[in-house]
Amino acid sequence: MAVSVEERTQKLARLAVRVGANVQEGQDVFVLVMDLQHTAMARAVTASAYEAGARFVSVVYWDPHVKLARLQGAPGDSLAFIPDWWDRIVSECIERKSASITIWGDPQPDLFDGVDADRAGADQMPMTPSIWEMLGGGEVNWTVVPAPTPGMAKRLLGSEDVARLWDVMGPMLRIDDDDPERSWQQHIASLRERATLLDERAFDAIHFAGPGTDLTVGILEGAKWLSGGIVTKTGIETVANMPTEEVFTTPDARRVDGTVTVTKPVQLIGGALVEGLRLRFEGGRAVEIDADRNADAVRAQMAFDDGAARLGEVAIVDGASPVGQTGLVFGDVLIDENATSHIAWGHAYAFTVPDLPDDEKEQDALGFNLSGVHQDAMIGGPEVEVTGIAKNGDRVPIIRDDAWVIG
Amino acid sequence: MAVSVEERTQKLARLAVRVGANVQEGQDVFVLVMDLQHTAMARAVTASAYEAGARFVSVVYWDPHVKLARLQGAPGDSLAFIPDWWDRIVSECIERKSASITIWGDPQPDLFDGVDADRAGADQMPMTPSIWEMLGGGEVNWTVVPAPTPGMAKRLLGSEDVARLWDVMGPMLRIDDDDPERSWQQHIASLRERATLLDERAFDAIHFAGPGTDLTVGILEGAKWLSGGIVTKTGIETVANMPTEEVFTTPDARRVDGTVTVTKPVQLIGGALVEGLRLRFEGGRAVEIDADRNADAVRAQMAFDDGAARLGEVAIVDGASPVGQTGLVFGDVLIDENATSHIAWGHAYAFTVPDLPDDEKEQDALGFNLSGVHQDAMIGGPEVEVTGIAKNGDRVPIIRDDAWVIG
Repeated sequence: MAVSVEERTQKLARLAVRVGANVQEGQDVFVLVMDLQHTAMARAVTASAYEAGARFVSVVYWDPHVKLARLQGAPGDSLAFIPDWWDRIVSECIERKSASITIWGDPQPDLFDGVDADRAGADQMPMTPSIWEMLGGGEVNWTVVPAPTPGMAKRLLGSEDVARLWDVMGPMLRIDDDDPERSWQQHIASLRERATLLDERAFDAIHFAGPGTDLTVGILEGAKWLSGGIVTKTGIETVANMPTEEVFTTPDARRVDGTVTVTKPVQLIGGALVEGLRLRFEGGRAVEIDADRNADAVRAQMAFDDGAARLGEVAIVDGASPVGQTGLVFGDVLIDENATSHIAWGHAYAFTVPDLPDDEKEQDALGFNLSGVHQDAMIGGPEVEVTGIAKNGDRVPIIRDDAWVIG
Repeated sequence: MAVSVEERTQKLARLAVRVGANVQEGQDVFVLVMDLQHTAMARAVTASAYEAGARFVSVVYWDPHVKLARLQGAPGDSLAFIPDWWDRIVSECIERKSASITIWGDPQPDLFDGVDADRAGADQMPMTPSIWEMLGGGEVNWTVVPAPTPGMAKRLLGSEDVARLWDVMGPMLRIDDDDPERSWQQHIASLRERATLLDERAFDAIHFAGPGTDLTVGILEGAKWLSGGIVTKTGIETVANMPTEEVFTTPDARRVDGTVTVTKPVQLIGGALVEGLRLRFEGGRAVEIDADRNADAVRAQMAFDDGAARLGEVAIVDGASPVGQTGLVFGDVLIDENATSHIAWGHAYAFTVPDLPDDEKEQDALGFNLSGVHQDAMIGGPEVEVTGIAKNGDRVPIIRDDAWVIG
């Protein structure tokens, strides 16, 4: 029996509330909707949140077309402006110990083509520094879920048949399982095992080797490997995004060296689609940036602030990932990052470092990267080997032939 | 040659920016979109605002379905809650001397049917006290414009043909004129003449007489008659809403007496559709509330606070109104109020009273009504006579046979 799009929307909404953000009785919830095409999902999430005992649900609809009008028409020196009310959403969320659910997906890849890269790079809305701080701070129980749209179905499958897109995405979202909540619990448990294995080895660096890639990523002293199964400071168990297939940690922002070829197109957050991206790092900083398409947009993004050209995340995913197994490039980084191993430049996640000092200067001095951006990019694949390098120089295979081999 | 829906949307957006709010170079603009069906209008207004030199445009989409989920699912004692970030939108708008454009229309009349009236009455979002204060405060240059939708076309004309609905609404919005900006300037000038005439008479009260209506509305000492052509404290000329056909002033909240029959259905702000409403006032307060449909919703609204059952506005419109001449009930109070004379219970407009003290207690003591609500209701029509009562008791006809007769 086919399950209707509406029913699947409700199932994913329920998972986002119960397993993803794990909304607690009496909590407020901030729902950020990244496209007006996600209305049905936004409403289903709202209803599910109240059903779970939420007190008040703030639903904020972001409209990329409004951003486009700004990039095309606003005075150049105004583009870095962020209104106070926007930051107040985030600070109120933290003050009230609220939950947060972001509905993501189908960011209309071509919408920002033709926009001047410097102008686009100056405007960080909607993913403002305050939002990244919230996501990284460990105070708010949050999740990010996609919402399949007709446009995404058309782009990936050639027709606007959203039901077929749900068929493709069902396994990675685990919504068609008999007991999706239980399936997610088991999945998160197995990712946590991987993180524990890597923690036990306490690697000094991770090495990526493949066509156009010879990259060594130093690991920050004291950083833990984590999965998407994140526990907030207040002890709430969450799943940071759905799908999630990664284990990740924080690089030492001063110890990243070598060349890397990005193996899938990257949709810049709120911006352009970048293809064939190649980076060279020296002493932690990206010093060469080339691409077949939209290299300028990456250059502008990396020029945003001091930390934007340094890494804030490194993540390992093997070929068993149901995202990777679709063989599709979703063009949406929050899905695609789960297809294969990846890095992110920009802000690091504070919750990966248990003893991180609160002071940003001290964080910076330790090699913890600070920035107003956070941009994932996929660097793994069938031809890319991932190796752990121990403090004594020993090399331990982690991924070979796209399979997880460390145990 | 037929003008396309897209072109008309752009024309109305341009009028909203240039004539309605009269956005000034360098201003920020707060665009409040009252339904997700108004996306095209919201985007056109945004582009027009940047074209007019706006610095930053905040577009806030309100989703009535999200409100419905709250009314159905949130804890009862939480329904009066308004998040800080929402009030911050308004306070930031005032602090930065921003403009504001609200896109209104087709509020899905049946959506809130079946919702418990007490619960609905407790939740004032999105038209919160802070918003009413902004609209009444004279600091922000603002306007309210409708956005025709397929649903509205279906409801009014029997088919979802939005082009036909634009045909109907063209004359009242003056968008099809050769020079719409000039047409609006002339129209506002003629409404201002009417206001001046009434000011010269300095009536003590207005009397409405018709079937089921015998209502005397005392006029607040010192209150001016105004049209939709409003000048802010900073001297910016605006048109408060489009369409606008009224001249209006502020009643003395203690001197309203008699019975009144509301002559058209009333869509409560953010709530239910009320039909056949009859009210009896005593010493300014509505003491009897009956209706053929949804009287309870009015009772709950009028119980919201002390001022909710007292009048904050009285307005005179004659039968020449192009809104009235359509013969349609739009089911949208901001259009329908321009079809005929009307009253509003709840908050009064401070800008009608030049010497109003700032202190709310002093305002209250003068008979200026304070409330968190403002609800218009139509009481005029072909059978309703409107008469001015001078301080010496002289009676001067204002409307006879639905025509403006005072001159």
